[in-house]
Amino acid sequence: MYILKDIATFIDAELIGDASIKINSLATSFNAQKDQLTYVASNKYKSDLPTLTAGAVIITKDLLKDCPTNALVVDDVYLAFAQITHYFKQPPTYFDGVHTSAQINSKNIAKNCTIGAHVRIGKDCTIGANTVIEQGVTIGNNVIIQPNVTVLQNCTIGNNVSLSAGVVIGSEGFGNALDSQGHWHTIAHLGNVVIGNDVAIGANTVIDRGTLEDTQIHNGVRLDNLVHIAHNVSLGENTAIAAGVTIGGSVTLGRRCQIGGGAVIASHIHLADDVVITGASTVDKHLDKGRYTGFTSISPHSDWKRTQIWLLKLDKITQYLNIQLKHLKGR
Amino acid sequence: MYILKDIATFIDAELIGDASIKINSLATSFNAQKDQLTYVASNKYKSDLPTLTAGAVIITKDLLKDCPTNALVVDDVYLAFAQITHYFKQPPTYFDGVHTSAQINSKNIAKNCTIGAHVRIGKDCTIGANTVIEQGVTIGNNVIIQPNVTVLQNCTIGNNVSLSAGVVIGSEGFGNALDSQGHWHTIAHLGNVVIGNDVAIGANTVIDRGTLEDTQIHNGVRLDNLVHIAHNVSLGENTAIAAGVTIGGSVTLGRRCQIGGGAVIASHIHLADDVVITGASTVDKHLDKGRYTGFTSISPHSDWKRTQIWLLKLDKITQYLNIQLKHLKGR
Amino acid sequence: MYILKDIATFIDAELIGDASIKINSLATSFNAQKDQLTYVASNKYKSDLPTLTAGAVIITKDLLKDCPTNALVVDDVYLAFAQITHYFKQPPTYFDGVHTSAQINSKNIAKNCTIGAHVRIGKDCTIGANTVIEQGVTIGNNVIIQPNVTVLQNCTIGNNVSLSAGVVIGSEGFGNALDSQGHWHTIAHLGNVVIGNDVAIGANTVIDRGTLEDTQIHNGVRLDNLVHIAHNVSLGENTAIAAGVTIGGSVTLGRRCQIGGGAVIASHIHLADDVVITGASTVDKHLDKGRYTGFTSISPHSDWKRTQIWLLKLDKITQYLNIQLKHLKGR
Repeated sequence: MYILKDIATFIDAELIGDASIKINSLATSFNAQKDQLTYVASNKYKSDLPTLTAGAVIITKDLLKDCPTNALVVDDVYLAFAQITHYFKQPPTYFDGVHTSAQINSKNIAKNCTIGAHVRIGKDCTIGANTVIEQGVTIGNNVIIQPNVTVLQNCTIGNNVSLSAGVVIGSEGFGNALDSQGHWHTIAHLGNVVIGNDVAIGANTVIDRGTLEDTQIHNGVRLDNLVHIAHNVSLGENTAIAAGVTIGGSVTLGRRCQIGGGAVIASHIHLADDVVITGASTVDKHLDKGRYTGFTSISPHSDWKRTQIWLLKLDKITQYLNIQLKHLKGR
Repeated sequence: MYILKDIATFIDAELIGDASIKINSLATSFNAQKDQLTYVASNKYKSDLPTLTAGAVIITKDLLKDCPTNALVVDDVYLAFAQITHYFKQPPTYFDGVHTSAQINSKNIAKNCTIGAHVRIGKDCTIGANTVIEQGVTIGNNVIIQPNVTVLQNCTIGNNVSLSAGVVIGSEGFGNALDSQGHWHTIAHLGNVVIGNDVAIGANTVIDRGTLEDTQIHNGVRLDNLVHIAHNVSLGENTAIAAGVTIGGSVTLGRRCQIGGGAVIASHIHLADDVVITGASTVDKHLDKGRYTGFTSISPHSDWKRTQIWLLKLDKITQYLNIQLKHLKGR
Repeated sequence: MYILKDIATFIDAELIGDASIKINSLATSFNAQKDQLTYVASNKYKSDLPTLTAGAVIITKDLLKDCPTNALVVDDVYLAFAQITHYFKQPPTYFDGVHTSAQINSKNIAKNCTIGAHVRIGKDCTIGANTVIEQGVTIGNNVIIQPNVTVLQNCTIGNNVSLSAGVVIGSEGFGNALDSQGHWHTIAHLGNVVIGNDVAIGANTVIDRGTLEDTQIHNGVRLDNLVHIAHNVSLGENTAIAAGVTIGGSVTLGRRCQIGGGAVIASHIHLADDVVITGASTVDKHLDKGRYTGFTSISPHSDWKRTQIWLLKLDKITQYLNIQLKHLKGR
């Protein structure tokens, strides 16, 4: 918890309003309450400003006239947001062994696991050697965690879940703000990962925690090996994702989607329920129910080389042919 | 080992034949012997049915008339198969330290490794810190395993093999059966991973175990980092696979193949000996010896945008031009 | 250190010159000094030969007449080079615990970490459970290393760096020499990884060490999860690489580049400063400043199928149309 005045000092902001209010956490502009700080980083979200219920908001000077709450005025809102996130982040852990405050209701836990403060583990769970469960994690019943897994602070795992070897749950999202000198400033990710029931996650797969809200893996999801799930993603019930898939930030997948191996889904894309993506495809559009594909089918190398040249010349070829046709018609 | 009658109960099947026979394991329809249970899941494999040598087979009612052995009749064969696999799976391990039944003939083993029951390790091996070797694994001579590696139950590693940090050998394949409510049922993978001699495997690469038979990495294979090898894959001798490659289930690669970085090979594809795939290509066809490529060559973003629009219009353009030509000819 | 005569024996070479000189290490032809051995493997580098300052060079017989220094003559230079690298490689470690020669100036180190001989760790560092730091590694101040990370021998990490869970730094590069029987011979990678200040590296990302020189990650770089950085790569200051990117050997990226998720950059490619690559693109050309893209945009599966057929027929279609046009003109 900080006083708004302190936060203004941390991010070098001009404070307009009540300097004494208490800020307990950060939140998105839609959800922020009286004890929370939010930010409006771009003109895109400008229209949200008048209905804000946050205790305070980080904004630029030009938006001040529409601001219904206490304001922290800065030149670069996103950079200021990146800086303040670190004040609300729990420090990383460095302990080992099992913390005395952990509540463990299962016997099959390898003795050399690391289990942090206030972790709760349900019944009939198995945890393999060298696995690390950080502070505040909650794990349901009948969960199998293989060796060398890392579950980072405050994430939640439901019942009947399996995590294969090398999985990382709750890593930091890839969010960075650029300053005027071209240096990146890391955003500390304050959301968690929430995994539902009956979920299976393959070896060396990584799921990032959300920025302010949670990354959500709903009931019945299947993830294969070496899958990347970025921050703020939501995967609908019974969606299945094959190996080597890369899913960008804030992507939402509906229920019963099937994503083939090696596909890439760009950030902020939304797929409806029952979308099937062929492996190796790149998803660069929002998609409704149906089967979609996007990759270059394999061919002998020399054919491919020729085809790529033609592909880039297509507009010139058709232009040329049209001119010729017009010329002929005119005769 | 189960009595067939018990298995019928587990998967809620109608048992036609001798309820008292003993079933020791599961096997594919081609290989199943008198003490084994198999399944014929689709009409595709219907013709195999009359020559079956299995002790029993899971089938649908309509195939019963061609069945030469004891039958377990269900509505959804693949789902029943998924369910029964779990009865034949060894439970996961949760111990740490070195099991007293392990036979280790090398000195350079980090003391904090976890080595399971009946593991055999040959001469002149080195095993780094925090590595976990589960029960029943066999490792040859002169094998170097770096830190934080996981080798899961019953896999086999030959001589002169190196496993880099973070490697996972023997993870569960991505096989799931869908029930009528749209829920996935995980298949427990009962095959192993068998790695030959003179093999090198890069950091954080994952090799899944086979469903009923083994995933096979033959002598002399080279795998780079972050490669995914799915269940039932076979990689021929001296095949080399660069980083970030995703290889789907049941793929077979011949000898001396070279797969460039970031390529994706779809499930069930067969590559002959001496196939060279350019990096980033998608392999969606069986291929004979030769060099093959399949990706969109990079270009300035605006060119790419225009090209993609033309690509989707190609059939309409040629159609239009043909009509114009016919019209002109007709004059 | 070896006498040149011994090295000739190791690789079965004919020694022309002073057999008694001491060779302390291997180096590239440009940089090799009097106490170093180098190699000239192909006619491409033949012109470098007269200006060589190396103590000795591995070459083929036909280049002997231009050789200004002691020569080790072999039939297959690259294979001989691969073989000799192993004589200059430090053996892998297998210890655990903290080595007495390690200098650690931070308190927040998990007790079950493995820290090798002569490791130096600066102030205010945090190291999570089960992390392994091999011998000779140098780590600056204010470095956060999460659990289950592996940093291999002699790598260097600057100040204000964070390594997420499962990261591997300093794995062997994917360099192999093929012998006349079609067997691969692994090259032992003798360079290190050098990471600058203010760098953040995502979960399960892997950075390979250089062959003879170092893989370099300059100040301010950001790497997301599951990224592959091959041997000899150099990433310029403040370059950011999203998740699932595969970067081939000897690639150099300039400053402030941004590489989207799932992109693949082929070996030996050079990108200038300020290059932006859209996610999922394949980079197969050197590129100057600008934004570039290369992938097939997603479409309904049936449209994609038709488009791929047209794409391969493009040259035949335009040829046909041109013939028709000529014919019409000729009337």
